[in-house]
Amino acid sequence: MSTSIAIQDQYRDHSSHCYGCGRLNSHGLQIKSYWEGEHTVCRFQPQSFHTAVPGYVYGGLIASVIDCHATGTAAAAAYKAQGRSMDTDPELRYVTASLHVEYLRPTPIDVPMEVRGQVTELKGRKAVVEVTVTSKGRICARGTVVTVQAPEDWLKDRAEST
Amino acid sequence: MSTSIAIQDQYRDHSSHCYGCGRLNSHGLQIKSYWEGEHTVCRFQPQSFHTAVPGYVYGGLIASVIDCHATGTAAAAAYKAQGRSMDTDPELRYVTASLHVEYLRPTPIDVPMEVRGQVTELKGRKAVVEVTVTSKGRICARGTVVTVQAPEDWLKDRAEST
Repeated sequence: MSTSIAIQDQYRDHSSHCYGCGRLNSHGLQIKSYWEGEHTVCRFQPQSFHTAVPGYVYGGLIASVIDCHATGTAAAAAYKAQGRSMDTDPELRYVTASLHVEYLRPTPIDVPMEVRGQVTELKGRKAVVEVTVTSKGRICARGTVVTVQAPEDWLKDRAEST
Repeated sequence: MSTSIAIQDQYRDHSSHCYGCGRLNSHGLQIKSYWEGEHTVCRFQPQSFHTAVPGYVYGGLIASVIDCHATGTAAAAAYKAQGRSMDTDPELRYVTASLHVEYLRPTPIDVPMEVRGQVTELKGRKAVVEVTVTSKGRICARGTVVTVQAPEDWLKDRAEST
């Protein structure tokens, strides 16, 4: 299990066009997550224009980073549970069924957000991921993301069309 | 109550730098909402690169549109409840306390999303807004957004610094 290559950078090409985290989406946010022990971590520096009000991060961007960090965490944890690396078959990809974000305080825009994720349930095709967003030592937002494994035929169709 | 000017375009200058909906944020999404009867509506055409997978809209963008549509709806409904227009004092602005999105099916990217909002609770400083995202006649996502009125001193500080 490599920790030097981002989880999202190990997705197959046909799964790498996401605006949030796809390495093949040149317009995208390029959100990248890594294992650190039993947690996953993403450090994300918003652009100066990603503001809610001047000085603070836009809530929709926070939701986006939580979302891609969570689906990446779910996939990485599922491979880990099967004891195999992300470049092995069959492909495992998780999509978001529901996203819940609590905004606890304004998130400063001048430093990277530290986004930590942990799978709290991995059962059947479902994975639940709890996420915290910390900035300047304080938790600014919490997320709960329910993800489900994308169907094999859906992934197969994608692979054939790209 | 004007319906020809977008709700967000009636925000004061110091409240118009939001990446999602601020008219003064030239890099932003320029999300705009309007009254249609008792509902608010936003029609939003994603860019071709706002993909989850090719052909479908990125979930973080859907969350963003729900968020700005909901806070705009909350503000507009609060002015309406007080029987006054958005250019009168005191300023009323709502910020997001929590955002919940259920993704029911993939949202096609080739047509505008129709986003409808309705305030289901407006009490004290809190407003709850229920949102649906429809595309090609089918509901693709549902949102519940709990918003709270921004403190007066916070708005005053913003006004003085811009």
